[in-house]
Amino acid sequence: MSNGDIFVGEVIGTAILILFGAGVVAAVVLDHSKAKDAGWAVIAFGWGFGVLAGAYTAAPLSGGHLNPAVTVGIAIDTGDWDQVHFYVAGQMAGAFLGAVLCWLVYFAQFQANAEDRSAQPTLGIFSTAPEIRHPVANLLTEIIATVGLVLPILAFGLTEGLGQSGTAILIVAFLVVGIGLSLGGPTGYAINPARDLGPRIAHAVLPIPNKGTSDWSYSWIPVVGPLAGGALSGLIFNVAF
Amino acid sequence: MSNGDIFVGEVIGTAILILFGAGVVAAVVLDHSKAKDAGWAVIAFGWGFGVLAGAYTAAPLSGGHLNPAVTVGIAIDTGDWDQVHFYVAGQMAGAFLGAVLCWLVYFAQFQANAEDRSAQPTLGIFSTAPEIRHPVANLLTEIIATVGLVLPILAFGLTEGLGQSGTAILIVAFLVVGIGLSLGGPTGYAINPARDLGPRIAHAVLPIPNKGTSDWSYSWIPVVGPLAGGALSGLIFNVAF
Amino acid sequence: MSNGDIFVGEVIGTAILILFGAGVVAAVVLDHSKAKDAGWAVIAFGWGFGVLAGAYTAAPLSGGHLNPAVTVGIAIDTGDWDQVHFYVAGQMAGAFLGAVLCWLVYFAQFQANAEDRSAQPTLGIFSTAPEIRHPVANLLTEIIATVGLVLPILAFGLTEGLGQSGTAILIVAFLVVGIGLSLGGPTGYAINPARDLGPRIAHAVLPIPNKGTSDWSYSWIPVVGPLAGGALSGLIFNVAF
Amino acid sequence: MSNGDIFVGEVIGTAILILFGAGVVAAVVLDHSKAKDAGWAVIAFGWGFGVLAGAYTAAPLSGGHLNPAVTVGIAIDTGDWDQVHFYVAGQMAGAFLGAVLCWLVYFAQFQANAEDRSAQPTLGIFSTAPEIRHPVANLLTEIIATVGLVLPILAFGLTEGLGQSGTAILIVAFLVVGIGLSLGGPTGYAINPARDLGPRIAHAVLPIPNKGTSDWSYSWIPVVGPLAGGALSGLIFNVAF
Repeated sequence: MSNGDIFVGEVIGTAILILFGAGVVAAVVLDHSKAKDAGWAVIAFGWGFGVLAGAYTAAPLSGGHLNPAVTVGIAIDTGDWDQVHFYVAGQMAGAFLGAVLCWLVYFAQFQANAEDRSAQPTLGIFSTAPEIRHPVANLLTEIIATVGLVLPILAFGLTEGLGQSGTAILIVAFLVVGIGLSLGGPTGYAINPARDLGPRIAHAVLPIPNKGTSDWSYSWIPVVGPLAGGALSGLIFNVAF
Repeated sequence: MSNGDIFVGEVIGTAILILFGAGVVAAVVLDHSKAKDAGWAVIAFGWGFGVLAGAYTAAPLSGGHLNPAVTVGIAIDTGDWDQVHFYVAGQMAGAFLGAVLCWLVYFAQFQANAEDRSAQPTLGIFSTAPEIRHPVANLLTEIIATVGLVLPILAFGLTEGLGQSGTAILIVAFLVVGIGLSLGGPTGYAINPARDLGPRIAHAVLPIPNKGTSDWSYSWIPVVGPLAGGALSGLIFNVAF
Repeated sequence: MSNGDIFVGEVIGTAILILFGAGVVAAVVLDHSKAKDAGWAVIAFGWGFGVLAGAYTAAPLSGGHLNPAVTVGIAIDTGDWDQVHFYVAGQMAGAFLGAVLCWLVYFAQFQANAEDRSAQPTLGIFSTAPEIRHPVANLLTEIIATVGLVLPILAFGLTEGLGQSGTAILIVAFLVVGIGLSLGGPTGYAINPARDLGPRIAHAVLPIPNKGTSDWSYSWIPVVGPLAGGALSGLIFNVAF
Repeated sequence: MSNGDIFVGEVIGTAILILFGAGVVAAVVLDHSKAKDAGWAVIAFGWGFGVLAGAYTAAPLSGGHLNPAVTVGIAIDTGDWDQVHFYVAGQMAGAFLGAVLCWLVYFAQFQANAEDRSAQPTLGIFSTAPEIRHPVANLLTEIIATVGLVLPILAFGLTEGLGQSGTAILIVAFLVVGIGLSLGGPTGYAINPARDLGPRIAHAVLPIPNKGTSDWSYSWIPVVGPLAGGALSGLIFNVAF
């Protein structure tokens, strides 16, 4: 795949992923939304189908990684790091773009939120936050949850076949739903550095009234944890398979 | 595919789509229904499985577009507009027919609704309405949500393969569930001009007692927005892929 | 397929379908169940995955119809009625057997139900009942909902391919979930004469304490409606496809 | 497949299964979790997607049984018991490991649970318990529910094809969701001796504060019932198919 196709594919695919993923949180937490208070299962399925939509779109261009942890895991597995920076650059740009699109979709709701209840925090729509702030435990949660994503992807040979198989895209989508349901409780499951950092930057720069803090003190955990989990998955895969 | 097959396939497929889609809203909002108050996730899954049922049925005849936004996106992609009017005519007729079938399935509930609580509005079963009435924001929501539908369909080559692959039908069904969960909060996600306008006409003409307004002042947004989103998807696809 | 394989396959497959389907209603309505009050979506998904389990099991023996309405629709389509009675006999026997298995799985709950709350009705676990008793509307609901099941199955050539394709089994399972969510509100969607009549007979004969009425006055509707819907599907299919 | 690959594959796959499965119960029952009180459907889907994740990962090494009841059912079907002990040893070790990983993911929640509400029992996160303690009925429930898992797997030739087919993995995942929804009400559906016994041992030995009893008096039922159900499935399969 050409560097240009990789970059464009990852931008578009990750933008769609974040549009759906941030979108479902906005749908559940903002007032004046038909999905208000629809619950955690809706959030987990929304993120999973965001992966489906984004990977399905990006597959013919870039293979649809959408996640630096996946890209790093595959690079450790294959030993080929040549195009990693094109992947990660596309993922970061796409995650930022997707957050902007989510803000546009819920524009009237964000405005009403500021008017109805001043200082209602909005960061949770864009980025993750732990239920209990405990850096070691939070990091461990993100590492293990990311292994739960990347190791299955590596094991089934998705390194080669993701772009060609609709069945694999379905499986990865439901895998992501499962991670949300099962392992998302403590930290909100970033499991993807771009998914957390890109929208956090968007939250910081977008003109959302009364948006609250962007919580930069926590921001390193959903970057370091998933990268460590992706690398660990590559190592386990090389040893065990 | 012959013009006749296209028309018949789109009539039957879109009728099934609307029967399921309007049906699930009736199931959730009308009294004396076993799914009363079952929530937004049920509505999103009901519409998604309506796409599955309709596309699965129409696929061998017409390829199963069921949506003028999809038809327009494919026409812009391929440059072939010859059969577009047969598709759109079938979609409009099918959407009207599906709304009538939904009314028949819930006939006793519609009658009881009028008797139990006079002037309970019923339009929400047939057509979409925004939570916050803001034409620019509503239009933007529909455009972006429709790109979230049509761009993935174009990207994965469904232009050619929809009729042949059950896996693609499954993916599109869950894609539609995802759009509902993630992007349906502000406007109820028409993302399909026929899906909104056909049942709105049915609502206007059917003898439903105390049915309330058909809200024609909003009706142009779920037509123009999805058509613009479908066209935009075709343009993005031609540039990026 | 041999007559013996057809009969055995339909007995086993329909028994599994009813075990799961009646089971999920028992899980949601009986006290001392972990799924107590889990809601309508759980019931719709439970029945859908019951179809998946039963069809998956029966497929290599009989093709996995599990439903006289499907068998009749296929017979009208193909003109071949030779083995219909082996299918229907297996479906009826299997439906009865599945209801007995459900009673055994929830044996302690049925006993506790009788002790805790005397005369708590149990028929809803086994068979369908309308929310509003209106024979014409109820019949119409069952006919249309059955067309929503059988016409897609016929249209996609499942007449020939059901036994061979896991993807088709997945699609039919989610199609049944969709019918439950969208069209199950008024009558509880029998859409299958064996699914309703077999468990109703089991309800009548099983020694369930304080079980309540078996409601024979309604029992003809979930037999006649689905058979008419299956036949109508075959006719539509022959005309339109 | 080599004995080493089988052992390693079953360790990794079963560890992932239990990580997801125990994880989803922790997510729903522990305080300070984003999925707190998310309900039974979330638990059933979490376990099903745990099977998807574990089987998907283990498939290329061991075929992904992850369950002694499946291994025994296949051995009775094929008559080949040579590698059964490598399967079961891997499954037991993996189930223990997965329970430890779940404890690490929810470490801060387990600590907070002990501090907030002393003696809050935690066994339900790791192992099953009946709603009504009735050994004969509980055993019967586990036997029948396990037949509902193993017989479909055998019937569709998964004995040979599980490792190769993503569609089969999807079907088995939704089959497990269905068993949870439909047959999990009375006992919490062990349907897998390793799934219950491994995490019960982990619960007994892990330093979880105020963890409550490990309930050894019930522990034989979720071992004996599933093994009997797996064996019965093999026998039914050999007679009927």
